[in-house]
Amino acid sequence: MVHLSIKKTIAIIGAGPCGLSQLLAFKQAEQDQLVELVCFERQAEWGGLWQYTALTGTDSCGEPIHSSMYRQLWSNGPKEVLEYVDYTFEQHFGVSIPSYPPRAVLYDYITGRAKAGDIRKFIQFRTAVRSVDFDDNTKKFHVTIEDLTNQLTKYLTFDHVIVASGHYTIPNMPDFEGISKFPGRLLHSHDYRGADEFVNKNLLIIGSSYSAEDIAMQCYKFGARSITISYRSCPMSFRWPDRIKEVPLLQKIEGRTAYFKDGTNVDNLDCIIVCTGYRHNHSYMAENLRFRTVGNLYVPPSLYKGIFWYAEPQLAYLGMQNQLYTLNMFDIQAALVRDVFLGYVTLPDDKSQKQRQKNISEWQAREQTLSLDDHEAFSDLQTDYIRDIVSCCDQNTVPKFDLERSNAGMYRFFQDKRDNILTYRDQPFHSIFFPDKEAPISETPWIKNTDDSIEGFLQSIKTV
Amino acid sequence: MVHLSIKKTIAIIGAGPCGLSQLLAFKQAEQDQLVELVCFERQAEWGGLWQYTALTGTDSCGEPIHSSMYRQLWSNGPKEVLEYVDYTFEQHFGVSIPSYPPRAVLYDYITGRAKAGDIRKFIQFRTAVRSVDFDDNTKKFHVTIEDLTNQLTKYLTFDHVIVASGHYTIPNMPDFEGISKFPGRLLHSHDYRGADEFVNKNLLIIGSSYSAEDIAMQCYKFGARSITISYRSCPMSFRWPDRIKEVPLLQKIEGRTAYFKDGTNVDNLDCIIVCTGYRHNHSYMAENLRFRTVGNLYVPPSLYKGIFWYAEPQLAYLGMQNQLYTLNMFDIQAALVRDVFLGYVTLPDDKSQKQRQKNISEWQAREQTLSLDDHEAFSDLQTDYIRDIVSCCDQNTVPKFDLERSNAGMYRFFQDKRDNILTYRDQPFHSIFFPDKEAPISETPWIKNTDDSIEGFLQSIKTV
Repeated sequence: MVHLSIKKTIAIIGAGPCGLSQLLAFKQAEQDQLVELVCFERQAEWGGLWQYTALTGTDSCGEPIHSSMYRQLWSNGPKEVLEYVDYTFEQHFGVSIPSYPPRAVLYDYITGRAKAGDIRKFIQFRTAVRSVDFDDNTKKFHVTIEDLTNQLTKYLTFDHVIVASGHYTIPNMPDFEGISKFPGRLLHSHDYRGADEFVNKNLLIIGSSYSAEDIAMQCYKFGARSITISYRSCPMSFRWPDRIKEVPLLQKIEGRTAYFKDGTNVDNLDCIIVCTGYRHNHSYMAENLRFRTVGNLYVPPSLYKGIFWYAEPQLAYLGMQNQLYTLNMFDIQAALVRDVFLGYVTLPDDKSQKQRQKNISEWQAREQTLSLDDHEAFSDLQTDYIRDIVSCCDQNTVPKFDLERSNAGMYRFFQDKRDNILTYRDQPFHSIFFPDKEAPISETPWIKNTDDSIEGFLQSIKTV
Repeated sequence: MVHLSIKKTIAIIGAGPCGLSQLLAFKQAEQDQLVELVCFERQAEWGGLWQYTALTGTDSCGEPIHSSMYRQLWSNGPKEVLEYVDYTFEQHFGVSIPSYPPRAVLYDYITGRAKAGDIRKFIQFRTAVRSVDFDDNTKKFHVTIEDLTNQLTKYLTFDHVIVASGHYTIPNMPDFEGISKFPGRLLHSHDYRGADEFVNKNLLIIGSSYSAEDIAMQCYKFGARSITISYRSCPMSFRWPDRIKEVPLLQKIEGRTAYFKDGTNVDNLDCIIVCTGYRHNHSYMAENLRFRTVGNLYVPPSLYKGIFWYAEPQLAYLGMQNQLYTLNMFDIQAALVRDVFLGYVTLPDDKSQKQRQKNISEWQAREQTLSLDDHEAFSDLQTDYIRDIVSCCDQNTVPKFDLERSNAGMYRFFQDKRDNILTYRDQPFHSIFFPDKEAPISETPWIKNTDDSIEGFLQSIKTV
C-alpha cells in the first residue's frame, strides 16, 4: 500500500445506499488522516430512495421529491443476493429473517449499518449540489452547494467528486395520443404511493419492467377491479392471475378508452399508471463531466469500469448501472473508488483515453447482443462485471463474496417468478455466505400480508 | 413619439397570457421594423396555465409540468373585470355570454385574440430558457435556451428581456408533523386535476385562499363525503354548505387523523389536498437579476411600477403581482414595457436607484397596512396601481377602461361570494365598456352544471 502524505478532499453527492457504501469505504482512510470527507444530501434524512414519503412533487424547501418509494413495497429480489458482506441481516436484527422483506426492514438494515459505522457526521443534510466544474489547471473540482435550511450558497473545492445521486427520480414520460386529455387519474410510477386508492378501479399500466410488474401485482393484491398492462417491445409473460392481462403498445386514449396496437381496446378506465422508467439527470454536472445515457443500461457509456468518468478519472459515478445486484455491488464499486483515489491501486495510464474507451466498448458490445427477456444473460453480465471490478481492487480489503452462488440465486429467483408471480416472494433462499443456512419463511404468504412494518414482519416468522 | 433608428432585439419568456399581451403590444413596432421579437415557450402550446393537461410531474421532454389547471375549472371572477379592451368576449364568440365561463371558454378567448393578432410566428415552442445574464459593458443580455425537441443548446444576445413565465407552478409546500407518513392520498393543488377521484371521500384541504375555496367547492359539487378546510391565520368564513367546515391550523397527522390548533380532530381522512399557494421561482435568471419574494404580494418587491427590475430597467417582469385584475392589467403592463423599451416614454433618470426604491417602498407600505380579509381594500390597491401605470404610458395607445366601474365590479363579486358561495357564479354582470349591457345567464346553475365544454356553455345560455 502506498500511503499519501497530504489529505485529499472528497465530495460525495447523495447519502443513499451508494453514498453510504462510499463513506464506509473511506472511513479507515479518514481515521488515518488521509482524506477529508463530506457528503451532500438534499433530503433531510439518509437512505435515498428507501425513504418513504407520502409527498409527491415538491418538498417544503421547494426541491423535487427524490423518492419513488411506495407503501407496501416489498423487496422484489431475495435479500441473500444483496446482503452486505460485513453486516448481515441476522447480525442487524438478531434473528434470521425471510428472504423477501418489506421496505422498512431494508431501510432499517441499510441505515443500521451506517449508524454502526458512525458515518452520519460526514453528511450535510438538506444541502443541494447546484454545480460541479473541473479546473484543468489546478486539477480541482469547483462545487457550488446550497444550504436549503438557511438558503445560503457556498463555493467549495475538492480533489475528487463521487456522484451517488441515483437515477430513479426523474420520470421517463413517453407521449401517447390523447393521454393529456384523459379524464381519470394519470400518474407516473414516481408518484405512485400505494394501492389503496385503486381498489375497485380499472387500471391501465404502461410498461414492462420491474415497476409495471410490481405495481400491477400490488394493485391486484389490494383489490383493483381490472389491470391491463401495455408493453412496447416484449411482454413480461408471467402467469398472470385473473384480473390482469398484458396487451401490446398503447396507440391512443379517447375519453376513458385505451386502444392498443393489436386492435383491441379497454373501456371505462379509471386510472393510467405510466411505469416507463426513469431518466438519468445529472444536470448540476458541467456538460463535459455529465454522464448521459438513453435508457437504463447494465453497461453505462462513458464510465470506465462502470464507475470512472472516461475523460477525467478523478470523478466517479456510483450505481449508474441498471441493477440486479445492488448493495453488495455498491460496496465493491466504493472499494475500487477508494483504492484508486488513494493510490492503493492505479488505473492504467491512458492520457489518450483509448484504452478506457476500448474497455467500455467491449462491455457495451456484450450487452448489445443480449435479448431483452434473457434475464439470466444479464445476470451473467453483471456477475462478470462485479468479478472484474473485484479483480481491480486491493485484494486485502475488497469485500468478496461467492459470485457463482449469487448468480445461481439470481437464476432461481427468475425461475420462481416464472413459476408463480404470486408466490415467488414466499420462497426461502440459502445464504451466500453460509450455504447450509436457509432463510425461514413467513406465516403469512405475501399475497395476503398487508402488514409491512418491521414488527409485523419479524413476528410473522414461522418457527420450526 | 421618438422613433428609433435601429432594431431592438427583445426576448419574451413565456407564451401565456402575459407573453401574448406583450407580443401584441409590440406588433405594430415589429411591422415598423423597430424590433426583432422572439418569445420562448417551454410548453408545446400557448396559453400558459390555461392549458389543461392530465399529466402531473414531468412531461415527455423531462420538463416539469407547468400548469396547475384542472378539469371543471370555471372562472372564479366575472369575465367583465378581465375582458380585453380591444377584443371582447362577444366579438370572439359572436354572442353575449354569461359572466362566469369555464376554462375552455377562457382559453379559446385568450388564444383567439392571439390568433387574430397573427403573433404565433414569434413563438419558439418547446424551448426552455436555461439562463439569463446581463453584460454591464455591452448592456446586453446573454440568454441560453434549450431546444427541447432537438436537444440543442443555443446562446443568444438581446437588448431587452421580458419575463412572463408565471408564478403558479412551483408549489409552496409547508411541513406538518406526520404528513409525510399519511397513509392516504396527499397532493398539492398543483397536481389536482379534477374532483372525480374524491367522490365519497373524506378530504382535508389546507389553505384559505382561492385554490382552497375553489377545490373545496368543486369536490363538494361532485360529491365528496366531507371537506374540512384548515386555515393558518384567517378563515374564509363563507356560508359553507353542509359537508364543508373550516377549522384552525393543522398541528399534526397521525394515521388518518388530523389534529387542529383548537384541539379538535378529524378521523378517517382519505385525502389531503395542500392548497397553500405557489412560490416564485425564476432560477434561470442570474442572481443579480432574479425577482424573489416570499409569498404572493400585490406589490412585488424590487419591481419599479410593479414591472421593471429596480437595478436594470432593460429587464421587465410581467404579471408578478398577486392578481385580482388579470388579462386587462397584463395588456396595460405590456403597453408600458413597449413604451419604455422603444423610448416612447422615459422612466425618470435614476442611476442611484433611489427614486425607484422609494416608489416601491411607498406602495409596499400601503399593502402592509391592509387586513388580509379586506378584499375591497386590495381591489382599491390594484385599481390604483393600474391607474398609475396607465398614467405612465403613451396616452394615445394605452388600452384604457373605466377603472371605477371595474373596481365596483370587484366589490360586487366579493359581496356575491359572501352572500352565497354556491350561487355567485350564476350572477350576471354589466359590461365595463357598455354599462347598459348585462350578461345573459345560464339555464343550468353552476352547482349543477357538469358540462364545461365550450359547446355546452354556449348552448346553456338562457334566451330571454
